[in-house]
This record gives sequence, structure tokens and C-alpha cells, in this order.
Amino acid sequence: MSFRASVLTLYPEMFPGPLGVSLAGRALERGDAVIETVAIRDFGIGRHRLVDDTPSGGGPGMVMRADVLAAAIDHAAPAGDTRPRLLMSPRGRPLTQARVRQLAEGEGAIILCGRFEGVDERVIEGRSLEEVSIGDYVLSGGEIAALVLLDAVIRLLPGVMGNAASGEWESFEGALLEHPQYTRPAEWEGRTIPKVLTSGDHGAVERWRREAAERITAERRPDLLTG
Amino acid sequence: MSFRASVLTLYPEMFPGPLGVSLAGRALERGDAVIETVAIRDFGIGRHRLVDDTPSGGGPGMVMRADVLAAAIDHAAPAGDTRPRLLMSPRGRPLTQARVRQLAEGEGAIILCGRFEGVDERVIEGRSLEEVSIGDYVLSGGEIAALVLLDAVIRLLPGVMGNAASGEWESFEGALLEHPQYTRPAEWEGRTIPKVLTSGDHGAVERWRREAAERITAERRPDLLTG
Repeated sequence: MSFRASVLTLYPEMFPGPLGVSLAGRALERGDAVIETVAIRDFGIGRHRLVDDTPSGGGPGMVMRADVLAAAIDHAAPAGDTRPRLLMSPRGRPLTQARVRQLAEGEGAIILCGRFEGVDERVIEGRSLEEVSIGDYVLSGGEIAALVLLDAVIRLLPGVMGNAASGEWESFEGALLEHPQYTRPAEWEGRTIPKVLTSGDHGAVERWRREAAERITAERRPDLLTG
Repeated sequence: MSFRASVLTLYPEMFPGPLGVSLAGRALERGDAVIETVAIRDFGIGRHRLVDDTPSGGGPGMVMRADVLAAAIDHAAPAGDTRPRLLMSPRGRPLTQARVRQLAEGEGAIILCGRFEGVDERVIEGRSLEEVSIGDYVLSGGEIAALVLLDAVIRLLPGVMGNAASGEWESFEGALLEHPQYTRPAEWEGRTIPKVLTSGDHGAVERWRREAAERITAERRPDLLTG
């Protein structure tokens, strides 16, 4: 069973974009993941296919209409489609690796990419959208946030990573940032590789890595240790 | 003066990608921002242009070589280039809207996209790389993270946003998540727009929005209020 994402966007041409190459590109080619786009514009109002209007109460920018978005959502997810419905939005719950893993274990997702000042609150309520934020910064729209979410999910799908163990070693899986890495050459610009890493003592290597990961996490992200 | 980004990557074809359309696309067309790519592969070792090797001390995956990356960085940023040198990495300091704004006020950035298990620690030290994380999840590489950073920066460049005021209203600028938005139609699936928003009383609208933003932030992101 492949992971099926339906991305609702004003810019279908942004997909698969960077996901079309490398690891994700091969997963899409094999059909391990499928990314369909739904052009919100197709559900716009009238001859000009309007999708947005001015905010009630005034203010700058434009707000995406509830009726237009609902029509696009209902088209992408007919009755019985149980995939989670995500709205990429800076107001959302911050994306975590745990949520990524949960999504990767599911059958897919409906992903709505917001634009402008936001979307009409009533469609968030009326279509039970889960607002997801990829970080505390503002993007020009939800499309690149959707690419982030899809890349994170696709690399965890069965068979996608060449070395299955690779997924287990990384930052956040154990709530620690990753230890420093080194590779050849043994010396570069007078800088050498820590001796323990070339000692052949696997226990000592493990201890050094664990301690380094704990030290780096404590220095940079104490919130991960207490969270 | 335009913002000049030099992106060091194994996948130059990922750029500008989604940044080639919409708001960022027009900024690139006008030359308000310039995105150059540097193919790390061009600095690889030997006939096969190798860029990575196995991790010292063992473990899965591959580590990008310090000498290869340093050569690419030195090519992109010759002596006297004072742009910040960023390494997109889950071990980095979390990206914030304040850092985005700071970057947008500068002359550009060197952006190194990591891949594999990581990059040799010595090049991070030897070339004073600033590790930047876009969130607590793992991507297949730094490329999509670089797209996120560039999109966030480009929209803040002078002249990029149609309505200049638009940038000021949004989540994080005031450390509050944004209030709900509504637009026409007045009623949709039995759901109406809060009366205060159509009252014409601007003071009341402002108060309602402020209170709603505070309530939503307290519910979803209490960390933003205490941070």
C-alpha cells in the first residue's frame, strides 16, 4: 500500500518540485508514495474563479473563502476517505518527528496549502482541519511547508531509505541532537579526527558519541531534555 | 542592492524550484533576490567526484568530506565575502522570524545543504558555519530546508510584498498566533461571521482580534507567551 497525499494548492506546478529527485523522487517513481495535486482555482467562484476576498472587519491582505476550499476538500476527500486533513499554517501545532512517523504509518493525507492572510476559520471547523506548523517563521504560503512535511514522511516509508538503520540514528529519534561526525581524510587543515573514533573499541566509540550528543543537546537545545 | 544567496548542494536542479513561481518568482525575475547554486559534486575527489565517505568509528550512512565542502565554500565565498555561512541541519539553532528578518536586512547568505548522516565536524569549525534548523523533524537533506529559509527571507525584502502592511500582522511578529479570519459569504453551511467583525466599530474589531489571538496562543503555544 502506498502513501497517498492530495495537495490542495493555488500552485500545482510547485509539486513534486524538489521531491521529484533523489530519495523522494525514486519513491515516487516506484509508487511507494503518490502526490496528487488539486488546483483550488478550479473551485473558484464565477468567471474569474475567485478564491479569496477581503477580511471581515478590515485589514490588509486577502482571506481564502470557506465555500471554495470546502468544495476542493470534498472533491479530494469524498465521504469515507479517512486520511487526516492537514492545513499548513503558522498557527498550527508544531510538526514533530513523532507526528511525521505517525503519518508515515498511515495511508496518506489531505494537505491544504494556505495563502494570503489566512483561510476562513469556518472551513477549519467545518471540515475538521488539523493546523500544522513547520516552525516559528512566516512563509509566503503553505506549499513549501507541505514539501517539508512530505519529504520527512516519504523518507520513513518502508523501503525508501537504502540503509534501514539510518533512520534510527538521527536527531530527535532519541530526543538528542546527533553527535559530531568525521570521515577521511585523517587530517585536514591541521585538524584531526578524535582518536577514540579510530581506536576500534566499539564500546568506547558508543560512549563518546552518547556523551557528545548529550553535551551538544544540553548546550543548544536544553528544551529537548526537559520537554 | 539585491539579496544574494549561494546555495551549495548535490542537487542544483532543486533550485529555484517552488521559489520560481508566485511572490518569490517575481522577486527573482526583478532581481530583488538572486539564487546561485554551487554543485558540491564539482569539488569531489578523483575521477568519480566522491563527496562523502564512511563515518569514522563506524555506523550507517555516509559523511560529507571536510575537504570537498571547504573547496566548495571557498569557491562560493572568496576572501572578503562577509555573508553569513549557514549549514541547514537538524542539530542547528531553530530558525525564528527574528533571524529571518535579520538575514533579509543583510546582503545575502552562503547556504550549505547537508545530506547523508551529516558533514565532517571539522568543516563546521574550520569555516565557521552557523547550523540552522527549520524544525524538530528529519528531512532527507538540507535542500528543502534551504527553500524554506529563502522563501521566508525573500518575502520580507523591500518591494516584494504587494501590501507592505501585510508583513506586520502575522504570527510571530508580535509573538502571538494570528486571530481567526473570515470573509464572504456571510453565512456558509449555517456558520456565520462573528457580528463584531461586521459592526463597523474598528476599536471593537481590534479588541476582539487581540483577545482571540491571545486566547489561541495561550491554548496552542503557551511557550510563546513565556519565552
